[in-house]
This record gives sequence, structure tokens and C-alpha cells, in this order.
Amino acid sequence: LITRLQGAENNVWREYGQLAVKYKPVNLGLGFPDFHPPKFVLDALADVVASNDASLHQYARPNGHLRLVNVLAKLYSKLLGREINAETEILTTLGASEALFCAITGLVDVGDEVIIIEPYFDVYVPLIKIAGGVTKFIALKPKQSRINSSADFVLDQKELENLFTEKTKAIILNTPNNPLGKVFDISELNFIADLCKKWNVICISDEVYEWMVYKPKEHIRIASLPGMWERTVTIGSAGKTFCMTGWKVGWVYGNEKLLEPLQIVHHCSVFTGSTPEQEAVAVAFEKELSRLGQSDSYLVNLEKDLKLKRDYMVKILSEAHLKPVIPDGSFFLVADWSSLETSVDLAYETGQYKDFRFTKWMTKNVGLLGIPPTIFYTEKNKNLLEKYVRFCFIKKQENLEKAAEALNKLK
Amino acid sequence: LITRLQGAENNVWREYGQLAVKYKPVNLGLGFPDFHPPKFVLDALADVVASNDASLHQYARPNGHLRLVNVLAKLYSKLLGREINAETEILTTLGASEALFCAITGLVDVGDEVIIIEPYFDVYVPLIKIAGGVTKFIALKPKQSRINSSADFVLDQKELENLFTEKTKAIILNTPNNPLGKVFDISELNFIADLCKKWNVICISDEVYEWMVYKPKEHIRIASLPGMWERTVTIGSAGKTFCMTGWKVGWVYGNEKLLEPLQIVHHCSVFTGSTPEQEAVAVAFEKELSRLGQSDSYLVNLEKDLKLKRDYMVKILSEAHLKPVIPDGSFFLVADWSSLETSVDLAYETGQYKDFRFTKWMTKNVGLLGIPPTIFYTEKNKNLLEKYVRFCFIKKQENLEKAAEALNKLK
Ligand SMILES: CSCCC(=O)C(=O)O
Ligand SMILES: CSCCC(=O)C(=O)O
Repeated sequence: LITRLQGAENNVWREYGQLAVKYKPVNLGLGFPDFHPPKFVLDALADVVASNDASLHQYARPNGHLRLVNVLAKLYSKLLGREINAETEILTTLGASEALFCAITGLVDVGDEVIIIEPYFDVYVPLIKIAGGVTKFIALKPKQSRINSSADFVLDQKELENLFTEKTKAIILNTPNNPLGKVFDISELNFIADLCKKWNVICISDEVYEWMVYKPKEHIRIASLPGMWERTVTIGSAGKTFCMTGWKVGWVYGNEKLLEPLQIVHHCSVFTGSTPEQEAVAVAFEKELSRLGQSDSYLVNLEKDLKLKRDYMVKILSEAHLKPVIPDGSFFLVADWSSLETSVDLAYETGQYKDFRFTKWMTKNVGLLGIPPTIFYTEKNKNLLEKYVRFCFIKKQENLEKAAEALNKLK
Repeated sequence: LITRLQGAENNVWREYGQLAVKYKPVNLGLGFPDFHPPKFVLDALADVVASNDASLHQYARPNGHLRLVNVLAKLYSKLLGREINAETEILTTLGASEALFCAITGLVDVGDEVIIIEPYFDVYVPLIKIAGGVTKFIALKPKQSRINSSADFVLDQKELENLFTEKTKAIILNTPNNPLGKVFDISELNFIADLCKKWNVICISDEVYEWMVYKPKEHIRIASLPGMWERTVTIGSAGKTFCMTGWKVGWVYGNEKLLEPLQIVHHCSVFTGSTPEQEAVAVAFEKELSRLGQSDSYLVNLEKDLKLKRDYMVKILSEAHLKPVIPDGSFFLVADWSSLETSVDLAYETGQYKDFRFTKWMTKNVGLLGIPPTIFYTEKNKNLLEKYVRFCFIKKQENLEKAAEALNKLK
């Protein structure tokens, strides 16, 4: 392996994907829904396929299919309370993954420092390594010994302040956060924003779970804070938003000047996104825009449905003595299994973190698959969630009930 | 712009895309069909949308949707005369662009030399620059003063030999070649293969126009030559193959060990490809595999149709005194406009290569858009095609006839 890829080859998603195939557990691992996308989204794609417009199957405008950037500009102009230019301030990408890749590859030069908040979506680190950047970490810490909700994990302001230097190029924010489901509140965001402004640092804001924030908590976009538009690129995902993670449509919005290097990376690496999928997503957002915040809004109902699923998960995990950290956002939660430690065999695969051993044991013996959360931490902080497991709960009620049955074995 | 992106920002596709919007010429620029993809391909996507299988809308297997890698393995096993392992020797990508990106980013380390044959698809160069590699060039040269066909452009063997050094990591081959349409013959490929083996060099073979080779010429896959499987990654494109460049499905096949770094780059940068599009492409290839080489084969008929279009273009260009170089493959050709030089105004935009000035003049005054071929050359060799223009001829007969009308103005 060439230098830049060393250390990038570990991929828990592949390993746990193979476990799922082998043991056929109830799979609450990788973050995807196990049900159909909403009908209005599928209908939109069906209409593209049936359309007489041959151009819908040919190269899209490289920076983004016009119909899609137009509706995204309308949507986010409304949400951010500022006029966003569809043609220069939005880039659509092949999923949010590619948006993240373009942001890091486009903005981080060799030797630039990037601040990451732990726990973090694991791919940030190899991407920064590939770009030649230097990672600096700060872990969210439990603010009390008894952790009830994701809001109990907090940033140490002093520690964050100390991470910013002349060399800091960017900070990656992920709100709602994967895997905790923490939703950063206005005072936390203001603190981060002030440091970005003070040190002239770019904020790469990964907001792919923006529509999965449980009332009364509210999602706040850091790009909407004073002075932050100029220094923030915000990433979104149609796959997460419309429950079709297999369609590769994502986007990034931000100031024209900031976006330019991302566009260059995008042109060189993938050239352009899928036209039929972008057209269908555009139609879906147009529909949604016309009913935004209303009782028939898909997004309003998504939040309601997911909240029920979250509450159900919290209940069944608690009953099985896996103490859940109740998430304010996302479709993930982590749960503490340490009260079971004495009764389960953690020894069968040594040399790994306990959460790996627990999740493998659970997959094999309980028939339930979750993700070991130490993958979201650096070496130093893996202890923080080593006795936890991450579950994805965007699943059919029927399958959540199967998870409950599996968990019964732990009682 | 950060260091690695400097020089990568020039993008003729964007500039000429804007010209097309502005002047509404007959657009024979960017390489895409202006007609519908074949019905069996659209039907396959319609079936995915109508399917009861919810997993067809969620994350695909990162290295490639199983149904697609399975049929690709069958297809290329047949074509290469060797057993290809579907799960380890094929990676599907978000278009051939991403395959190229993964190959270069995965294989080329900082300081590694990469040999490129001019004229070359322009994006090779910024990709190598982004990876920190060093480009070495050799231009195909006209073997006689009167050029009739793309086969008249040849490699100087001595010159190529001299380019290989201890530092050479890879050579990029593009057959059929964009923009000339040159199809490398067995003796040329053997010569390249021998040098690769002698110097332990990887061949990145961009074969996206593999199905567009005009009889009696035949496409030869360099990976099928003795000793080359171990050192070749070959890139293909569903967009080019099935006339739907807007679907982002491509692939790369090769030895398992060689493919591993490409998979890592793919996982980090885009994670996985589109599931519905991959499923539909798999179904299309399954259908095609059952009739390969037969008179009802889509690919057999594609070659026939395109050959007629090629011959029509050759005729109308010749009649308008734009002397075409008849291509043996691809859906591009270049034509020499130097006999018109005295009658057209090349002066209105100075400081650019003549082909830029000619193509802009032609777009505006003739209503026909072609691509300036100097973009496919380094500084030193731009003179080779400076008095040429590249046309894409994978267009409806109706639009080729409009091109003929436009060309009438030049008579
Ligand atoms: C590309 S993996 C996306 C992240 C996710 O779904 C997860 O953390 O499970
Ligand atoms: C990604 S652009 C693909 C190449 C092409 O179509 C062209 O050269 O016109």
C-alpha cells in the first residue's frame, strides 16, 4: 500500500457486513432503513424513467442538476434566512460521502491541522490522512457519572480553545452526531463559531441527520450563525433524508469562494452526479417544499415515526439491562452493556477492544448485530464507549420486535 | 487554492457547456448520445423502481452490487479467456471517472512517474497531480504527412522505451483513444506490455469505448496478453456502453492484489455505488450476455449504427473541406480545418490556441460546436492538433443532418 493509504484499510462496515451475512442476526448495524422509500420519491424516479426527455439519462451539469440545485437553494434559503445562489453556492455530489471527500480534499493542504470531535464518523480520519492533513482530537465527555441522554456528552471549552492554532485549517462538526445522536445546542455552536472566526478556520458541517432531530430539540445550522456563512460548508444527504441510502445523492452548500476547490475535486474524481436520481430527488424536494412544517409533510412525519422507534428501542434495551443513552437526534443510539459483563463470555476473541468482543458475541449468541463504538474514537479515548454498543433503529416495527425477542435472551 | 489543486481548475467541459447554452449550436462537443437509452435498459430500471425488494434502494455492497459483479465477471471471463473472480477482481464505481480516480489515487504515490500517451483524456493529468505523481508524456505522431485514419497516428517505440525508468509506476493506455479514435493493434500492445513487464510497471487501461470499434478492426484487451493480468487494471463504463452517460455506473477489473488500494480509496471517497442503477445495469448485461455476438445483440447493433454515423460525419465534413481523420473506434473524430483558415476570422479572441479560436468562431458563426483538441496535449505538442476540431457523432440522424446544414455555410 502506498503511503497515503496506510491505516485507511480497516473497515468495520465490511467486517460487520460479513458478520450479518454469516449469522443472519437482526441487523441494527450499518445505518440504513430496511423499508421502502416513500411512494412520492419512488414515483418521481418512475416518472423519470417514463419521461420523453432523453437528456434525463445523459450527463448532468457537473456542479449539480439544475432542477435539484434550484430546489435546494429555495429550501435552504428559507431555513437559513438568507438568499442562496443555486448555481454557485450549491454542489451536488454522489452521496454525502463524496461531499465529505470533496470538502476535505479540496480544503485541507499537506500539513494543515483539522479538529475532530470524538466520537466521529470514522471515515473523517483516513480522508484527512489521504489529503496529508494532521488530525487534532477533542472528545465529548460525560458531564456526570450517570449518563441518560446524548446531551450529557459535552465539549470542554478550555480544551477546545487550546486545540486552535495558526495551523488549524478546519473543524469538522457533526450535528446530529453519529453515533451518540447528540444535537449541538446554540451555546455550543456559538462557542465553536467564535473560535472559527477568531482563528480564521473553516467549519465542515456534516448535517446528514438534519431531519432526524426529536422535538422539542431543534436542529441548528451553524452556517446560519453571524459571520459563519463565509466560513462553513454544510453537507446534506438525500439518502438519509428520503430513506434510500442506495441512491447516491448528496450535496454541500456554502460560500461560492469556499466551494470552488470542492467543485474542482468533484470534476476530477467523479465528473458529475446521476441525472435520473438527481431529477427524482428534485421532484421530491419540490413536493416537500410545498408542505414544509405542515401536518402532511413527509419530514414532519418522519420525525414522529422515528421518535416512536427511538422510544421503543429505549424501552426494550432498558428492559434487557442495556442502558441506552437517549439520542436527541439521528437514528442511532448507544447502550451500555457493562451490567451484563460478568454473564457474557468476552474472552473468546482476545486482543480486541471489549465492544468488538461483545458485539461479536451478541451477533452469534443473541442474534442481534450492533456496531462497536470504539471505531468512532482514537486510541486514547476508546475507553469512553468501550462498554457500549451502537444500534441503528430506522427499521420496520416488525424487525424492532425481533430485536426485542433477541434481547429477551439477555434477561 | 491549495497546492494539489493548482492547475486542475481549467475545465473545458464547463466552458464549452456554457457556450452550448449561450449559442444553441448543434452540439457535437461533450461525448454523450442525444437519444434515449435502449428500451431494455430503461425497462430494467423501471422494474427496480416497481420491485418489492426494499433492499434495492439501500446501500449496495461497497465493492459492487453482487448481481452486477457476477455478470461482469461472466462477461469478461468469456472475453479474456480466464476465470475472473466476481467478488475480489471487480470493483464497481460511480462511473468510469471514479474508477480512473481510484486507480490513480490508489496506485500512484508521491514522486511516482506515470507515462501518458498524447492525445489523452484531459483529466488524467490533474488526477496524477492531486496524487503527487509525476507525468511523463509521449505523443502519437502522424506516420506520414497525409493523415487519413486514426491508425496513421503511431507510437515511436524508441521514444517510449526511453520513458521507462526505475521510477515508473504506471502507464495509462486508452484504447480506443479519445479524441483520435485510434484502436491500438496487437503489435503496439505487445510492445507496451513487454515494457511493463520489463520495468514492473502497472498498466491502467481506460477502455470505456471498448464496444465502439469498427469492423474489421477489433478491440484487444491488454489484460488478456501473457503476463499482463497481474499488472493491469482495466476500466469500463456502463454510461458509454448503454448510451446513458447520466447513470453513474462504471467498473474496474484486475488482479485482487492490485485492486485492493482502489477499493480503499472507493470506500473512503464515495463508500459505494448506486443500488438501483447497478441492479438495472446488471439486468441489462445479463440480457446482453445471452445474445453476445448474435445478430440481435444490442452491442453488435450499436457498432453497426455508430459506423453509419461515423461514415456520415466523414462525408459531410469532407464536403465542407474539414478533412476528417477516420476513427477506428470511439464516437469521436478529429477533423482538420486548416484549409478554411484564410476565410475565417481567427483573430477575435487572441492569446488562445487556434483551435479554441476556431471552435468558438464556429459555434457562433456556423452554429456547430466541437471541442478544441489541444486540451488533450501538453504545451509542447499542442501544435499537432491545433488546426483540428473534435466532434462527437453519437447523435440522432436528425441532428447529424442539422450539423450538415450548418457545415453548408462553410462551402
Ligand atoms: C457510509 S456509511 C454511513 C454511515 C452510516 O450509515 C453508519 O454510521 O452506519
Ligand atoms: C467525463 S467527460 C467524458 C469524456 C467525454 O465524454 C468527452 O471526452 O467528451
